[in-house]
Amino acid sequence: MSQSLHLTAFMRPVSLHTGAWRYPGAYADANFNFTHLKAFAQALERAKFDAFFMADHLAVLNMPVEALKRSHTVTSFEPFTLLSALAAVTERIGLAATASTTFDEPYHVARRFASLDHISGGRAAWNIVTTSNPDAARNFGLSDHVEHGERYKRAREFFDVVTGLWDSFADDAIIRDQESGIFFDPERMHVLDHKGEEFSVRGPLNIARPVQGWPVIVQAGQSEPGKQLAAETAEVVFAAPRDFATARALYADIKGRMPAAGRNPDHLKILPAAMIVIGETVEEAREKRARLDSLVHYDSAIASLSIALGHDASGFDPDGPLPEIPETNASKSGRAQVLRLAEEEKLTVRQLAQRYGGYAGLAFVGTKETIADEMERWLHEQAADGFTCVFPFLPQGLEDVTGTLVPELQRRGLFRTDYEGATLREHLGLPRPANRFFP
Amino acid sequence: MSQSLHLTAFMRPVSLHTGAWRYPGAYADANFNFTHLKAFAQALERAKFDAFFMADHLAVLNMPVEALKRSHTVTSFEPFTLLSALAAVTERIGLAATASTTFDEPYHVARRFASLDHISGGRAAWNIVTTSNPDAARNFGLSDHVEHGERYKRAREFFDVVTGLWDSFADDAIIRDQESGIFFDPERMHVLDHKGEEFSVRGPLNIARPVQGWPVIVQAGQSEPGKQLAAETAEVVFAAPRDFATARALYADIKGRMPAAGRNPDHLKILPAAMIVIGETVEEAREKRARLDSLVHYDSAIASLSIALGHDASGFDPDGPLPEIPETNASKSGRAQVLRLAEEEKLTVRQLAQRYGGYAGLAFVGTKETIADEMERWLHEQAADGFTCVFPFLPQGLEDVTGTLVPELQRRGLFRTDYEGATLREHLGLPRPANRFFP
Repeated sequence: MSQSLHLTAFMRPVSLHTGAWRYPGAYADANFNFTHLKAFAQALERAKFDAFFMADHLAVLNMPVEALKRSHTVTSFEPFTLLSALAAVTERIGLAATASTTFDEPYHVARRFASLDHISGGRAAWNIVTTSNPDAARNFGLSDHVEHGERYKRAREFFDVVTGLWDSFADDAIIRDQESGIFFDPERMHVLDHKGEEFSVRGPLNIARPVQGWPVIVQAGQSEPGKQLAAETAEVVFAAPRDFATARALYADIKGRMPAAGRNPDHLKILPAAMIVIGETVEEAREKRARLDSLVHYDSAIASLSIALGHDASGFDPDGPLPEIPETNASKSGRAQVLRLAEEEKLTVRQLAQRYGGYAGLAFVGTKETIADEMERWLHEQAADGFTCVFPFLPQGLEDVTGTLVPELQRRGLFRTDYEGATLREHLGLPRPANRFFP
Repeated sequence: MSQSLHLTAFMRPVSLHTGAWRYPGAYADANFNFTHLKAFAQALERAKFDAFFMADHLAVLNMPVEALKRSHTVTSFEPFTLLSALAAVTERIGLAATASTTFDEPYHVARRFASLDHISGGRAAWNIVTTSNPDAARNFGLSDHVEHGERYKRAREFFDVVTGLWDSFADDAIIRDQESGIFFDPERMHVLDHKGEEFSVRGPLNIARPVQGWPVIVQAGQSEPGKQLAAETAEVVFAAPRDFATARALYADIKGRMPAAGRNPDHLKILPAAMIVIGETVEEAREKRARLDSLVHYDSAIASLSIALGHDASGFDPDGPLPEIPETNASKSGRAQVLRLAEEEKLTVRQLAQRYGGYAGLAFVGTKETIADEMERWLHEQAADGFTCVFPFLPQGLEDVTGTLVPELQRRGLFRTDYEGATLREHLGLPRPANRFFP
């Protein structure tokens, strides 16, 4: 159990909340305005955040055109180009990017993350996703989507290949002896020669071992195969359970699987994603959230519900309960969450849609004190090792967190007042992996 | 015909010359030292270079271990992460990266270049390569290499898909009307729905149209299909003919094919790659080059010759002439160049190996005046629209060019003294492509 919190920021340029671009003071042009993103990353670094984490999709989100036209998520920077640019204008904050194991190649993924790790001096993290959006499949030559279990099987082998490629060179392989002319020791280079069910990759990677050994491994999945993959491979999990009880159960579940996978539970930090809305009073915070949600159009709301369900919800009775729907190939954890929410809070289709159309996940809405209380409780009662912060609107929602909540957490000794190490692994208290070929 | 020269820098972190890391004052650690790369890019920008162009490979180069251990090219930054980071610390210089049409997906390539173009404010360029290195194939699940003609067929369709994806949104598609809640006009978004022989890609791209419309298209190929692909698609060609006569013929050949492809020959800039070695006297420049070449070990030299030939040359008699070798699937233009050089200069295997082991291409070795004379001749006699500069060693070789040759060219009115535009297209005098779906 950690003695203090870890905080990362889960970002889209305009915010993850779909109404955010219309909020007073919002940077509606942030999708392609690097200046804003640079200011966000630098503000988070001044607040000593562990990492800046960029959300991603491999397609224009599949929603009806009437909803799509209201969405600020339609287009924005690609994460690698963005995070590499941010690496050049920050010094210490971690930089986490998403790469899909379903629609990319292990050699490319290993290479880009290793390069980002070298450029940033050891601050890269890889969010492993298996990509459940069927429209993404159609952008990569597949007419239908890869089945859920198959995606996770491929992800597991993809991880083995990528980490094997990162270990291509011993940490001391590069000699650079200008006198003798020997640049590196080929005995300290390993040819992976992987031949598996999904991939055949010879190697070696044409990049020296990353500064961190391996970039930090991040995952979200809450489905059964997602939890198992996390227990076996992840070092950060940002799964977003809907409440404290679910979070505690998830925390125990994932960490409980780790010993059987030969891992120390302290080597995985569970940082649930939570939208944080701060007011001078709890009432003011609730009003901010209500104002923000009111900016979401119903057309967008119902489309988002359809995505979460993996099923077109536009024909449902808005004022009735959620009808029975057939099982599909969409993300299982997302779908289960909708069904639980509908059942437990007895929400109508309209109410569900409004929740999903804005931001469906866990939210802390209150004052800096009530939110710090809540975070402290989650930390001390083993529901979380910290949080993946979602800002309701930008820049103000971020400034509320860095300007009021972080100082409150620091005052209580729950969050660092300065970075102690240089790398993301050091910020997170994670060990540097040994090289499997050159132990 | 251009009235003044265009200059780009073709870079590897330590230089393209294999002996460069041993040259006095060289930054032998530059492969993973971003500070050096930042200094190089900023120096080239102060000298008003059109672009910084990063060389690339998708594998550790295939040479015998005894040669490999002497090579500084074994590992270095991946180009996208590097150029994106450089975009954040430069303002005007163009940024050209390589992406392979054989081992990548059009959706990924379109997305990353569009994002780099947005991050840099319109400074991205895509060097289209078809990748002839057989070891690259083995890193991507292919046991043997894709045949030469097939690679170019795939490249042509890849180009059509990528440029089609860049045209997914009209330039005025994004509205961002916070009052009405309309973020963009879906009538100004095009779903590509490409179904070809090689690719099936639905689209649209999830990135707004690049600042330049399309990033600038760059190519090297000198083979028949390479020249034809360039005439149809390229806006910059950096093919490196070995001398003035060959350059003039190539210039006429490629530009001569353009009208039949419906293109204006002024819309393609031919910038031959040339290593530039400058001395106070011609003799001093030649001594610099001789000293540099002397730092290349014979083991590396013979391996490089094998790569250029696509054939293992290690068993050849070093002091005999180049024996007959069977035709292979390696890059045809590279192979033809070796055969011509061997024949015309009557070089032994050892002499050829030493040439290829250092830097095999065109070189201008002289004083700032003799080199400026040569460049002026190439420009005025339609052998080149400028040059792709290769620095023999870094940082000094770069400083020699920016500090002495560039001022000499500027004094003669042959090179800009300041940038006139903001984008790479503007530096190169290239038109912004119309959107094929929203003309």
